[in-house]
Amino acid sequence: MAPPVSLDTVHAWWRAANYLSAGQIYLTQDPLLRTELTRDDIKPRLLGHWGTTPGLNLVYAHLNRIIVERGTSMIFVCGPGHGGPAMVANAWLDGTYSELFPDVGQDVEGLTKLVRQFSFPGGIPSHAAPETPGSINEGGELGYSLMHAYGAALDNPDLVVACVIGDGEAETGPLAASWRAHAFLNPKTDGAVLPILHLNGYKIANPTLLARIPDEELAEFFRGHGYEPLFVTGDIDDPEGVHGAMAETMDAAFDRIREIQASARSGSDNSGDSPRWPAIIMRTPKGWTGPREVDGVQVEGTYRAHQVPLAGVRDNDKHREQLEQWLHSYRPDELFTLEGAPVDDLLPLRPSPKLRMSASDHAQGGIRAPLMLPDIEPFAVDVFDTGAHTDAKASTEGEGTADTPENRKDGQPSRTATAESTKVFAAWLAETMSQNRDSFRLFGPDEVESNRLTAVFDVTNRVWREEIIDLDTHLAGGGQVIEALSEHLMQGLLEGYLLTGRHGLLTSYEAFIHIVDSMFNQHAKWIESADKVSWRRPIASLNYLLSSHVWRQDHNGFSHQDPGFLNVVVSKQADVVRVYLPPDANTLLATMQHVFDTQNRVNVVVAGKQPEPAWLTLDEAKQHVKAGLGVWPWAGNERDFDSSDPGKSTPDVVIACAGDVPTTEAIAAAQLVREELLDVTVRLVNIVDLMRLQDARRHPHGLEEDEFDAIFTADRPVIFAFHGYPSLIHQLTYKRTNHANVHVHGFMERGTTTTPFDMVHLNDLDRYALAIDVVNRVPGLSDQDAAVQCVDRWQRARVEAREYAYTNGEDPAFITDWEFHR
Amino acid sequence: MAPPVSLDTVHAWWRAANYLSAGQIYLTQDPLLRTELTRDDIKPRLLGHWGTTPGLNLVYAHLNRIIVERGTSMIFVCGPGHGGPAMVANAWLDGTYSELFPDVGQDVEGLTKLVRQFSFPGGIPSHAAPETPGSINEGGELGYSLMHAYGAALDNPDLVVACVIGDGEAETGPLAASWRAHAFLNPKTDGAVLPILHLNGYKIANPTLLARIPDEELAEFFRGHGYEPLFVTGDIDDPEGVHGAMAETMDAAFDRIREIQASARSGSDNSGDSPRWPAIIMRTPKGWTGPREVDGVQVEGTYRAHQVPLAGVRDNDKHREQLEQWLHSYRPDELFTLEGAPVDDLLPLRPSPKLRMSASDHAQGGIRAPLMLPDIEPFAVDVFDTGAHTDAKASTEGEGTADTPENRKDGQPSRTATAESTKVFAAWLAETMSQNRDSFRLFGPDEVESNRLTAVFDVTNRVWREEIIDLDTHLAGGGQVIEALSEHLMQGLLEGYLLTGRHGLLTSYEAFIHIVDSMFNQHAKWIESADKVSWRRPIASLNYLLSSHVWRQDHNGFSHQDPGFLNVVVSKQADVVRVYLPPDANTLLATMQHVFDTQNRVNVVVAGKQPEPAWLTLDEAKQHVKAGLGVWPWAGNERDFDSSDPGKSTPDVVIACAGDVPTTEAIAAAQLVREELLDVTVRLVNIVDLMRLQDARRHPHGLEEDEFDAIFTADRPVIFAFHGYPSLIHQLTYKRTNHANVHVHGFMERGTTTTPFDMVHLNDLDRYALAIDVVNRVPGLSDQDAAVQCVDRWQRARVEAREYAYTNGEDPAFITDWEFHR
Repeated sequence: MAPPVSLDTVHAWWRAANYLSAGQIYLTQDPLLRTELTRDDIKPRLLGHWGTTPGLNLVYAHLNRIIVERGTSMIFVCGPGHGGPAMVANAWLDGTYSELFPDVGQDVEGLTKLVRQFSFPGGIPSHAAPETPGSINEGGELGYSLMHAYGAALDNPDLVVACVIGDGEAETGPLAASWRAHAFLNPKTDGAVLPILHLNGYKIANPTLLARIPDEELAEFFRGHGYEPLFVTGDIDDPEGVHGAMAETMDAAFDRIREIQASARSGSDNSGDSPRWPAIIMRTPKGWTGPREVDGVQVEGTYRAHQVPLAGVRDNDKHREQLEQWLHSYRPDELFTLEGAPVDDLLPLRPSPKLRMSASDHAQGGIRAPLMLPDIEPFAVDVFDTGAHTDAKASTEGEGTADTPENRKDGQPSRTATAESTKVFAAWLAETMSQNRDSFRLFGPDEVESNRLTAVFDVTNRVWREEIIDLDTHLAGGGQVIEALSEHLMQGLLEGYLLTGRHGLLTSYEAFIHIVDSMFNQHAKWIESADKVSWRRPIASLNYLLSSHVWRQDHNGFSHQDPGFLNVVVSKQADVVRVYLPPDANTLLATMQHVFDTQNRVNVVVAGKQPEPAWLTLDEAKQHVKAGLGVWPWAGNERDFDSSDPGKSTPDVVIACAGDVPTTEAIAAAQLVREELLDVTVRLVNIVDLMRLQDARRHPHGLEEDEFDAIFTADRPVIFAFHGYPSLIHQLTYKRTNHANVHVHGFMERGTTTTPFDMVHLNDLDRYALAIDVVNRVPGLSDQDAAVQCVDRWQRARVEAREYAYTNGEDPAFITDWEFHR
Repeated sequence: MAPPVSLDTVHAWWRAANYLSAGQIYLTQDPLLRTELTRDDIKPRLLGHWGTTPGLNLVYAHLNRIIVERGTSMIFVCGPGHGGPAMVANAWLDGTYSELFPDVGQDVEGLTKLVRQFSFPGGIPSHAAPETPGSINEGGELGYSLMHAYGAALDNPDLVVACVIGDGEAETGPLAASWRAHAFLNPKTDGAVLPILHLNGYKIANPTLLARIPDEELAEFFRGHGYEPLFVTGDIDDPEGVHGAMAETMDAAFDRIREIQASARSGSDNSGDSPRWPAIIMRTPKGWTGPREVDGVQVEGTYRAHQVPLAGVRDNDKHREQLEQWLHSYRPDELFTLEGAPVDDLLPLRPSPKLRMSASDHAQGGIRAPLMLPDIEPFAVDVFDTGAHTDAKASTEGEGTADTPENRKDGQPSRTATAESTKVFAAWLAETMSQNRDSFRLFGPDEVESNRLTAVFDVTNRVWREEIIDLDTHLAGGGQVIEALSEHLMQGLLEGYLLTGRHGLLTSYEAFIHIVDSMFNQHAKWIESADKVSWRRPIASLNYLLSSHVWRQDHNGFSHQDPGFLNVVVSKQADVVRVYLPPDANTLLATMQHVFDTQNRVNVVVAGKQPEPAWLTLDEAKQHVKAGLGVWPWAGNERDFDSSDPGKSTPDVVIACAGDVPTTEAIAAAQLVREELLDVTVRLVNIVDLMRLQDARRHPHGLEEDEFDAIFTADRPVIFAFHGYPSLIHQLTYKRTNHANVHVHGFMERGTTTTPFDMVHLNDLDRYALAIDVVNRVPGLSDQDAAVQCVDRWQRARVEAREYAYTNGEDPAFITDWEFHR
């Protein structure tokens, strides 16, 4: 251990940080108050937040003491909203800010920029944000600090993540769900999290709940969440007096962390022996060391200190005078040199460059362990291996004799293979996880097995630090899988893991991923902003695998049927978001291999877990994922189709599809048309990368106009079978030449407890509804007797199929045993 | 108190409910096993969930004992997922089910329907759902039971809400945020909530966290959340043995509730003296009383009992035999008469009709107190009261001489009034709240004051049962406002309040309402489904007032800028959702008066809180809200415009707008065009009810095609200034004749910490960008020298305005002091 840092130094640092924080809120110039404070020195709009700042500065200073004395590797997660001034002030004091932003130097000119840029147009945000050195947590939308902290600590055995949680933030659901995340933290191989609950008593305009309950109840709250609570209280009249207790508490917390880790790392696996990690409860007045009273009303220690304690400083001389006194109370001349650098007295608290929290490699983005991606070949489904199926065509040839375009070759199997797509993927995922032991995690809200990813348990376990009993399976003191019934917690842990340079996947039921809409939004915004920050390196993409999707939640009912997450995703910046709808197992494999290899994106993949047709060979699937969409000539009947120039031929109708169930229904519809409407030429287009539909000027994956027209034609009806809400396809294609002819069938918010066929039937997405739409849309077709008879037959067939289900409690055999004629 | 019910009766009821629950999961016929169980008696798809059911039935039976003995008015909130069989079984046993569904009678035929319909196509869901008697909580998406329970208890002093929380559900964020909701429950005027945590140990495939921590830690968890924990544990080998402890615990809990209420109601206001309400922790084996082992593996008491303990009963004789033994273990012949009714021995546990939880008036929908809606007239902004402004036009006439269509009358003020819209609304809201003391609540995540609704504190307070100190304002032991920093909790409490027949409003920052996307989804789905249930009466609409919106969160930065909730809302069924974008204060008043008066809807209103122009008189505003959209002739320059027949004239360009800031920019753009492009006729259309844009066939508020064409023209460019993402307007209008000419300016996900003008500038929504687009889109205009000069001038003006902001930290004067020439 290095020699102890004097608490006088800590106090000086705290004063300096408080001074710079207040300066950022108010000043445009003269940052060290070398001349009298005038109206022009004050920002025209006062937008910062003072309330939380002194508490954050206090913690930061004391953590620096720990780092300097003990050499601890640490990052600082700033939970409270509007904590930006504190984070920036400390990063400037420790030197990092000037290194990352050379124009904000350690001099008066740099300080002038520092104070002016804060919450100023073209400047920096008032929250901890991507622009803030050392931050992995945006302080705008509250609730995610502690889950980010735990995510960062995973597989980082030498790291301590200090996480300040505001008492406002502590009222949110996501934060409340995070307290017990230590149940997934392996003290042997993971780092530590030190939660520091900052009770400053008030939110914007209300007291906070946790600040108003008795200390004993608060202690029970923490012990009930598995922590050992350590209390520190600051006296409003004696700020300096807090340092002794604070230092003692910090030392106790870090001693305890070391003890827990030493014990875990020296012995054998101690799963079930869940240690009581320390947590600090710091009770200090809101806006501490700021103006006690303004215009005769108490401000310090009340909600009035939340934002700007003195609002009238520009035009109210008395307020301005009070601000001047306040700023001078920190004695800036003792803290900064004439040139505007921190005085030497502060330097003992400045950690060495590698150990500064503001400069931690863990918090600046960057992938620290490259992802090893195994080949997908060994895991692919062999689509043409079932010779038994070759007879099937013959057996139905009586009905299908007219369906003989040249591209339908003899001897080819008449039917594809069947596979559970997510299960096929799971085997490859297991191999991926075993090749990336310390840098890949799988998260699921109790749905890893339900989504058929059980194969991962061949290579790893679910980590679980509470009691494990004989009846449990795949549960151990360590492992790469984390499951708790909270989409929020799973998303937050994954975000923290990714933001500190690792890789992962979140799997969820499609409907319930809406629970984290806003977390997705904020993460996407983080990536959008971080991309513009020169010193932040790209991070691995946030990958979702959504299964148990709308079309196969027939049995779970209406509450489980919702494909709307795609709409939320598509609203974010095109550079960041991607949506994939692989139609079968091999395409899912190729999709996942691709998305795992991307950076700074959010990739949403929706795939089936039930047995479903496997249409493409692996080579075809790879090519399909690369192209993003394509014509499947074997599913249509264009004699003269040329894959190198799809625009050379023009079918009577295009049947387009995106999503596994819609693809099956679309192929079946095309088959109905081919076999029963002999004069109609039909082209089937499958879309795996949804953003291909968008204009190339709007999305980097967007198809060029002429490519789009060649595939979807300029003027033929496009019957589009879509996985989600139809409006999304219109939203993506409304600029396209042929948009007026695009007729989308998708989820129309009609659902109930029923069968898979009834789900597509209710929403007019079934094969018959699609085929009938072909008759309705192809000019002149609905006048032909043969077509009218087809429509009549199909109408009856779809009603009968539904009735069958209602009578028998299951779908008619053709849904599960349908013969596809390739 | 009525004479005690024997525990033998309770046990018999439990057996009967368990029998009927298992029957629902497996059987299609022969519900009382009067003949040997055959393959055909078994459902082809076994979809129910047994795991949670016996625990729910146990609680239900014991609550019935309390009701019968004490006459307590109670409802049952069923938190665990897939708890449907239990709710239905108990409702059938107490007689309610057959009253509500006469074809499911108290006879063998009725029982046959009862078992068959469960999780069967066209039948009933496996969750507690709108179709379930007595339910106000959907058991699909988990996490909301306890907040629904607390919402239901508010202003229902005689009601006890028993709320069973699954140990899976307890891991979710929203549930975790609910524990301390008793901080808002006034024991004097509100009812009570009895939380019953059901620890059955496992979720789908994982143990649960709370089931695996030591009892002492669990007790601390509850005490730390302010409860007095009462433990009951069931022994897997002695189910009957649980009743004594269970009855004792229930008695203790209800005694304690009565004690707390009696003390609060006899004394003076006891705010701050927060009682320790009882909470029951019930630890019983998962799938209790079901098959202990299946195929040699333990099922009862493990996660394997989660769904269907015996999966192979249709085709596996051994399984079927085991099922038969299991069902017979409840001794159905002792529980049901030959005719299939419950035996007389069960009747003592059947509450009187009015007290049955399944038939409670509180849980069947219906507005129990009609909302008193005060006149809005006294609260309106007088738009034409400022004679001072009449000179303004003269002063700028030098630039505006050409702008003289006949509809611009002399003597009319040149500029409208200015108002903070939400503040104007707040005064009327206060009056509304004072006229509906016991049936209207306002909820906010610490944003009531920030959204400028402070006027409500003139008539009521924020309720707060924790300590209140001198520094607090508008905080009291009772009041109609509830605030905690959790959008989840606020939404859930409001839902519970509405579902039990009352009225309310949730106000939030626009960006952060995304946090409850999925709760909105599920509530909308509830309304959609409940509307089809004959015995459910309509409830008051769920109303959102979103302020601090995307265009005025310039200072808070990118994380606070997100208008995407509108997209989420619009995806739900047209019957249910409405979106209003009132452009000014009077229109907001008229909008809110309208939405408060609706039922079974979700109304989303986005309005400004900053000073902004007030364009419409109250009469105009009322008319505007009624029409949903309309031409504002005074903002355009069509000489021959006829409001009774807008199609009679055709302008060169339509400038459309929706949202307060877009409206101001659109009017300013129209003014630029009028004043500087003298030959161009411009029409301004404002949309307040967004769904008017949609096709009348798709939305009940949709405009008919000819009306739409008359207003938006069939072929002229429409420059549309929109509050949200542009794609939403395309999604709503893509079927319209003139859609190809609709050019939408809206939020393009470009945001930062900056000024209001820079926000519109960044997203090309500013007046200049709109006016420039007019030049670009009106055929031939961009070839004219005058127009080119205008564009050049406007380009410079917008760059200069932005530069001004970047230099001075605020917008140029014309943004705040802009003179509108009416």
